[in-house]
Amino acid sequence: MTDPAFQRWAVRIEYDGTGLVGWQRQASGLSVQALLETAASHLAGGAAVPSITAGRTDAGVHALAQVAHLDFPAHARLNRHAVREGLSFHLRPHAVVVLDAAPVGPEWSARFSATWRSYEYRIFNRRARPALAAGHVWHVKSPLDIARMQEGANHLVGAHDFTSFRAAACQANSPLRTLDELSIRREGDHVLIFAKARSFLHHQVRNMVGTLKLVGIGQWEPQRVAQALQARTRAAAGPTAPPEGLYLNGVGYDPDPFA
Amino acid sequence: MTDPAFQRWAVRIEYDGTGLVGWQRQASGLSVQALLETAASHLAGGAAVPSITAGRTDAGVHALAQVAHLDFPAHARLNRHAVREGLSFHLRPHAVVVLDAAPVGPEWSARFSATWRSYEYRIFNRRARPALAAGHVWHVKSPLDIARMQEGANHLVGAHDFTSFRAAACQANSPLRTLDELSIRREGDHVLIFAKARSFLHHQVRNMVGTLKLVGIGQWEPQRVAQALQARTRAAAGPTAPPEGLYLNGVGYDPDPFA
Repeated sequence: MTDPAFQRWAVRIEYDGTGLVGWQRQASGLSVQALLETAASHLAGGAAVPSITAGRTDAGVHALAQVAHLDFPAHARLNRHAVREGLSFHLRPHAVVVLDAAPVGPEWSARFSATWRSYEYRIFNRRARPALAAGHVWHVKSPLDIARMQEGANHLVGAHDFTSFRAAACQANSPLRTLDELSIRREGDHVLIFAKARSFLHHQVRNMVGTLKLVGIGQWEPQRVAQALQARTRAAAGPTAPPEGLYLNGVGYDPDPFA
Repeated sequence: MTDPAFQRWAVRIEYDGTGLVGWQRQASGLSVQALLETAASHLAGGAAVPSITAGRTDAGVHALAQVAHLDFPAHARLNRHAVREGLSFHLRPHAVVVLDAAPVGPEWSARFSATWRSYEYRIFNRRARPALAAGHVWHVKSPLDIARMQEGANHLVGAHDFTSFRAAACQANSPLRTLDELSIRREGDHVLIFAKARSFLHHQVRNMVGTLKLVGIGQWEPQRVAQALQARTRAAAGPTAPPEGLYLNGVGYDPDPFA
């Protein structure tokens, strides 16, 4: 067995997407990837430390529990505490923090080893604009009927061709996805939408939420969600909900490297 | 009955205290009072509109449901919708929003008519610093024992001389207050402390929280809270918890002007 030239580490990350260009490194603007890799490079004595993530979140999207892996030079000799605390230290003052870190094998991938992803979408549903939650919710003024939204959502659960809910820029080979859960609940002024699947298409959650909002305000009958799905064309579904209400809140692996 | 020269309006307000100097107008910096009175003046065609609040929150302290009253010139002829929406419009882009407005009589006072105030204090209790909740919680790394904190808190409930929990700058005539409720619960990484009383001394909630934190981390026995109270000297209690975890979350009136 050969000793690899790098040691791969899995990290679980929380971030506030406000003001960031998203996960992926861009020509300009702050990305989570660039911030994380720069922090990792500090920890590795200046060496480049490439990363791969479970979910490339868009600009403005938040994460409660994003997962990525980082390939440190094998000579860096890090331990779990040093990776977690050292990365979080070097990520200051940015709103990105490492919650946990675990060594993984060179075949393990934050992206390809993931068995599920879950997202939460937060709608702030009252007349007055949010003062405290600004940038962290989608403000919808009209009262939302949660029971109607859930009825519409139920049409999307299961294995389907999600072409109608897929961004034009989506790079996935297939529009087929299996949505394991799409549940809606109210907590005071918040309407929370929880989605879980092995993987999602680009903008799939935001397009589903933008569609269910039409059902919630009474503009669409719940049954129309099924028709939009069957139409297999983006134009048949509702608009894309804004990024600031979306949270990547979990990525699953079997076994869990952080356990 | 004479027609007063002004029409008094009660308003319920939400604000994010981050970056504000607090409720009260200061020589420099943005205050909630100055922002609200400026917005009201816009609505009153430039006339001065003085305000009085139920609770003069400190710099960095937030409000979910602050109450104030505003004296508009009687000729302004406003209605409930115009006051609520007009003030919120003119408060843009600041993180201050008017949730409700109601006309009240000239004898009604946001401050003196209040029969209770309630505050919530939010501690973020995990090792990693908060990325998403930064500025909105007190970050305490050491695990907090909620049962111990509640045991300590129970010594403070009731009618007491709260000299030990009162800021040196407190202007109240008497240190006697009746604390109706002081309850603690955990919600995931958050430890939430809820306090309710007819009125509070300056820094009373933050000083109680700073003391209960010492109990929660095991540095103090719960019984020591009773001793601190009995000592009637500020030095006997714990330090003042930081402002960013504190939320004024309710003010009660009988009858409720917003009902």
